[in-house]
Amino acid sequence: MDNFMGYDAVAINAAGDAVVVLDQRLLPGREVFLELRTAEEVYEAISHLKVRGAPAIGVAAAYGAYVATRGLECPLTEFVVRFKSVCSYLNSSRPTAVNLKAALDRMYGVLADGKFCTLPQAKEALRKEADAIKEEDVRMCEKIARNGLSLLKHGSRILTHCNAGHLAVSRFGTALGPVHLAQEKGLAPKVYADETRPLLQGARLTMYELVKHGVDATLVCDNMASYLMAHGMVDLVMVGCDRVAANGDVANKIGTSGVAILAREYGIPFYVLGPSTTIDVNCASGDDIVIEERPGSEITELLFREPVAPEGAKTFNPAFDVTKAKYITAIVTDEGIFRPPFNFKK
Amino acid sequence: MDNFMGYDAVAINAAGDAVVVLDQRLLPGREVFLELRTAEEVYEAISHLKVRGAPAIGVAAAYGAYVATRGLECPLTEFVVRFKSVCSYLNSSRPTAVNLKAALDRMYGVLADGKFCTLPQAKEALRKEADAIKEEDVRMCEKIARNGLSLLKHGSRILTHCNAGHLAVSRFGTALGPVHLAQEKGLAPKVYADETRPLLQGARLTMYELVKHGVDATLVCDNMASYLMAHGMVDLVMVGCDRVAANGDVANKIGTSGVAILAREYGIPFYVLGPSTTIDVNCASGDDIVIEERPGSEITELLFREPVAPEGAKTFNPAFDVTKAKYITAIVTDEGIFRPPFNFKK
Repeated sequence: MDNFMGYDAVAINAAGDAVVVLDQRLLPGREVFLELRTAEEVYEAISHLKVRGAPAIGVAAAYGAYVATRGLECPLTEFVVRFKSVCSYLNSSRPTAVNLKAALDRMYGVLADGKFCTLPQAKEALRKEADAIKEEDVRMCEKIARNGLSLLKHGSRILTHCNAGHLAVSRFGTALGPVHLAQEKGLAPKVYADETRPLLQGARLTMYELVKHGVDATLVCDNMASYLMAHGMVDLVMVGCDRVAANGDVANKIGTSGVAILAREYGIPFYVLGPSTTIDVNCASGDDIVIEERPGSEITELLFREPVAPEGAKTFNPAFDVTKAKYITAIVTDEGIFRPPFNFKK
Repeated sequence: MDNFMGYDAVAINAAGDAVVVLDQRLLPGREVFLELRTAEEVYEAISHLKVRGAPAIGVAAAYGAYVATRGLECPLTEFVVRFKSVCSYLNSSRPTAVNLKAALDRMYGVLADGKFCTLPQAKEALRKEADAIKEEDVRMCEKIARNGLSLLKHGSRILTHCNAGHLAVSRFGTALGPVHLAQEKGLAPKVYADETRPLLQGARLTMYELVKHGVDATLVCDNMASYLMAHGMVDLVMVGCDRVAANGDVANKIGTSGVAILAREYGIPFYVLGPSTTIDVNCASGDDIVIEERPGSEITELLFREPVAPEGAKTFNPAFDVTKAKYITAIVTDEGIFRPPFNFKK
């Protein structure tokens, strides 16, 4: 696949001392790359959604843990303790996506087996692990794109929600991977992008990357999905995922479960796409997934600038929801296409 | 019922030469009353949603036709022709709601039977007809509120979409009528208000009037309805309507059909409330209702001020959708509560 964006959404800089992310809060108006060097900067970038998307925050946290500790000079045993502390700090930046914890567990795991004799060896191993996490993310996304492509025909009309594209991973995307690949192959995919309130990732990010790649994309408000489906304007739905439970329940951006229920009602296939690492076999069902609740100002102040509700308006702002497995046609990962009843056990 | 807002959403001024409306585009930030004197001003106020809500635009158009022609001095036969032309001009300001055409047909009907001898008599009759349309709207809303109240218990948790409240009619509201009445009776209703993209009538208008009336109201994004229902946070849904077809299909604000499908899936009653005049027995089903498509800038520019999508982003912006009768638990009007199979014939 072609890196049509010309950059990766998350990377480490040439000097190897900063995580480089495109500030997604400023898109589509401004393209500003941030260099994050401290644990606090990485935490803030994740919690404030400057970098977002389950796989992307996993990669950002892995590199973040590395760059934030590479300057530490202390006995190896102390380094291990301090590295662990940085990992658990970064892990607390957002609760719902499995990728964040998985990446940090993996980074800490490098040190946990105690096989290193020297601090430089340990740091080098951490850098290699972060590189591996990123490279695997890229490879998994390529495979997801190829697997997902089998679900598309020439001119397929795809509804998507939030942004599970290039900007949500290191490169290519999950839900949008097959779309980008179809575009490269001349299959002329057509996308309807839900704008995805409150933070408008669909309007700002999905439309940004689809327009950039020349994909025929149309922006709609979240509440228009039923209209599109009722009028036969959508052939299938493709969305990403933040955590997949062992029973196939899927946590993803708030609103996903509603789209899934509508799709079933209208007889439209509903596909979830994500790396196999997003499947959390230790999580029995969606009931066990912690749903992040975010500040109400995301709703009442349009992109933090403009009040749109009366002063004192009470709000409720869950950032994700759970789509029950029964509404999901298939879950597409790098390892293949899983259909109900979902059995992810290896 | 108490006029808790202290004003009517649509009225004629004391001099009888202007329609007075609160500019709903500026809420909740600013309370500005507009005086509309010409047909062009009334048309612009309706098409630009300064006054909106199916019953309110009916009343505004009725008074608008009167004030725009009351200064005409010409032979009665010419006046009738010119009045008809004003009516058809105003009727073209928005297509979906039945109330606009119904009110204007009724105004023109006053002249059509040709029983007046003089121009002053004709004008006086038009003024009386507009007053009657408004008074009937107020009385119908009172009855809707009383009928709808029978569906509420103490502490009922109601989800609503868009604004079908005081601001959408002359006074009291349709979907919010029972809520306001329950509030007056100390029944402590609790409302979840969908913000209602793209123009945020829920955030700006419904929250404004509920907060003003002291109702326990919580603002959510449209895509959160499924989450609320999945978590048992909603007892029933109440929405307004712009046109009800003879088979019970309902055209209402875009997104309504999605909420109805979710409600059925979660086993939650879905009620449509509106004046009996909103039932269009000449319209066989929802397929016959013209759905207004509005400018995409409503989506891409947050309240016309701030771009949130990349330049050149294609949009689709239907302003209404049709909720199939099969998803509707009951339609509450001033004439009673209709349940499926709907039979509105008198």
